[in-house]
Amino acid sequence: MADEFFYGVTLKEQNAEVVWNPESATTEEIEYARANKLIVKQILLGVEAKADEYNVVEVETKGEDSLIKIPIAVLKVGENRCSQSFLEFPDNPVTFRLIQGNGPVHIHGHHLVGELETEDDDEDN
Amino acid sequence: MADEFFYGVTLKEQNAEVVWNPESATTEEIEYARANKLIVKQILLGVEAKADEYNVVEVETKGEDSLIKIPIAVLKVGENRCSQSFLEFPDNPVTFRLIQGNGPVHIHGHHLVGELETEDDDEDN
Amino acid sequence: MADEFFYGVTLKEQNAEVVWNPESATTEEIEYARANKLIVKQILLGVEAKADEYNVVEVETKGEDSLIKIPIAVLKVGENRCSQSFLEFPDNPVTFRLIQGNGPVHIHGHHLVGELETEDDDEDN
Amino acid sequence: MADEFFYGVTLKEQNAEVVWNPESATTEEIEYARANKLIVKQILLGVEAKADEYNVVEVETKGEDSLIKIPIAVLKVGENRCSQSFLEFPDNPVTFRLIQGNGPVHIHGHHLVGELETEDDDEDN
Amino acid sequence: MADEFFYGVTLKEQNAEVVWNPESATTEEIEYARANKLIVKQILLGVEAKADEYNVVEVETKGEDSLIKIPIAVLKVGENRCSQSFLEFPDNPVTFRLIQGNGPVHIHGHHLVGELETEDDDEDN
Ligand SMILES: [Mg+2]
Ligand SMILES: [Mg+2]
Repeated sequence: MADEFFYGVTLKEQNAEVVWNPESATTEEIEYARANKLIVKQILLGVEAKADEYNVVEVETKGEDSLIKIPIAVLKVGENRCSQSFLEFPDNPVTFRLIQGNGPVHIHGHHLVGELETEDDDEDN
Repeated sequence: MADEFFYGVTLKEQNAEVVWNPESATTEEIEYARANKLIVKQILLGVEAKADEYNVVEVETKGEDSLIKIPIAVLKVGENRCSQSFLEFPDNPVTFRLIQGNGPVHIHGHHLVGELETEDDDEDN
Repeated sequence: MADEFFYGVTLKEQNAEVVWNPESATTEEIEYARANKLIVKQILLGVEAKADEYNVVEVETKGEDSLIKIPIAVLKVGENRCSQSFLEFPDNPVTFRLIQGNGPVHIHGHHLVGELETEDDDEDN
Repeated sequence: MADEFFYGVTLKEQNAEVVWNPESATTEEIEYARANKLIVKQILLGVEAKADEYNVVEVETKGEDSLIKIPIAVLKVGENRCSQSFLEFPDNPVTFRLIQGNGPVHIHGHHLVGELETEDDDEDN
Repeated sequence: MADEFFYGVTLKEQNAEVVWNPESATTEEIEYARANKLIVKQILLGVEAKADEYNVVEVETKGEDSLIKIPIAVLKVGENRCSQSFLEFPDNPVTFRLIQGNGPVHIHGHHLVGELETEDDDEDN
């Protein structure tokens, strides 16, 4: 059975980091892994943000062949308040980092937990 | 059988609150629960809104491990009139609150009512 | 078998109304109803629109428990030319009304006609 | 088996027209028709566009009951550079026309070719 | 079994090119091809970008009948910081090129690797 959860976190100040690590959220011992996905839907500059400064959110995660470390949002009062997207992060842990600016920056998304992979699935691998 | 409904509510003034509570909408006695989801598609600052003031919409709901209370929109005449997204709130009640500004702010979305969970489904849990 | 159609209408002047009523589009006598859905994808202020005036589009339709009458777009030359979304209106008739401004305002979307509900489906209701 | 293709065309000058006609793209003789759909994802004003002029893209296609001819984008340097949407055009030919402005305007989308409709499908019609 | 990966690359300077070539990513010898798709979700002008210059991203890929070479983003500080879309590139290699401006420009997306095409699928071709 699939589960899903609203995801909302805040990068509160410069250099703040938030890590999404599906593995650490496993509260029960299970024999087979379940797939996890985080979808980032929205990155919003908080109303308290200083005028005239850029806020840059970087993401760090495992890509197909190597580690990826790349900005995903550049926000500034009067220029861009909110970035709306559908960025999917399948399974691997993801770090969000405010590499420039004092924030706060709010990140909204969706955590999908997939079906239990059964013994049969393992045979297909 | 799945049902679906257009969802539209207005936060009419400062500190206004609207609660989406799927449980309270259950009009019939049913033996098995049905899954509910609210998808917020759009948050629109009404044409009557005062110029030069920020309107901030906060959402409060149960996340995966804890309660989440976080701004989801920051709107202002001449800066951001409308925020369009696809924020999904699976099952748990959701409170929308206008924590700053006089509004009005209109929230548009989609209420999905899922399949009846049968006795068989319960066994899988 | 499902059918689908591009939907495009214009609110030509102040107070203009357009009604989407799937029932009236039924050209053949059928024993079982088919589900209809209108998805509004885009609301665009026409190039002829006057500068310096707000154009407000209101929607009126049946919600889950009651009638909903709510603005869904606020457009103005130099502020917001176009509103893009994915507002779904399942089955019930929908009225679009230009309650402020002279337009023209173009509404683009998608009309989905669902599967025939068979006798078996009726038994599940 | 379904096929899909990236779709990208340019309206190069005032009054330019591009027609998407899935029928003319049939290179093989097939006994049964295949469904086609064009999804317009993005309409982008080219970097060469003149400042201070509106560019208007009109679409002409068959709707549910009649022919539809309606603007789908209004772009201008410094006002709206790009319009992003998900406008679906199922099966019928579509004409894109630059009815105002000198462009260039780029249209990006997705052409989906559906399953072969088999003899069995025909019996259900 | 389908695999999926977050995709993030940077066009670092004028004339920079990045190629997505699913074929070159095949690390194992497989008898049957797997379908690949790249979805471009977001094109973001980096915070280091110079003011007052346009940055233009061009894409080159195989379309249905011919090669397509077309701009997909036009970004400039103070005008357009970020372009969000859902541009799908099924299977064929794709080249992203910064044909104007000094960047940097970040491209974010999703790489979907499809099911193994089995012997049975080949018979349907
Ligand atoms: Mg429940
Ligand atoms: Mg291949």
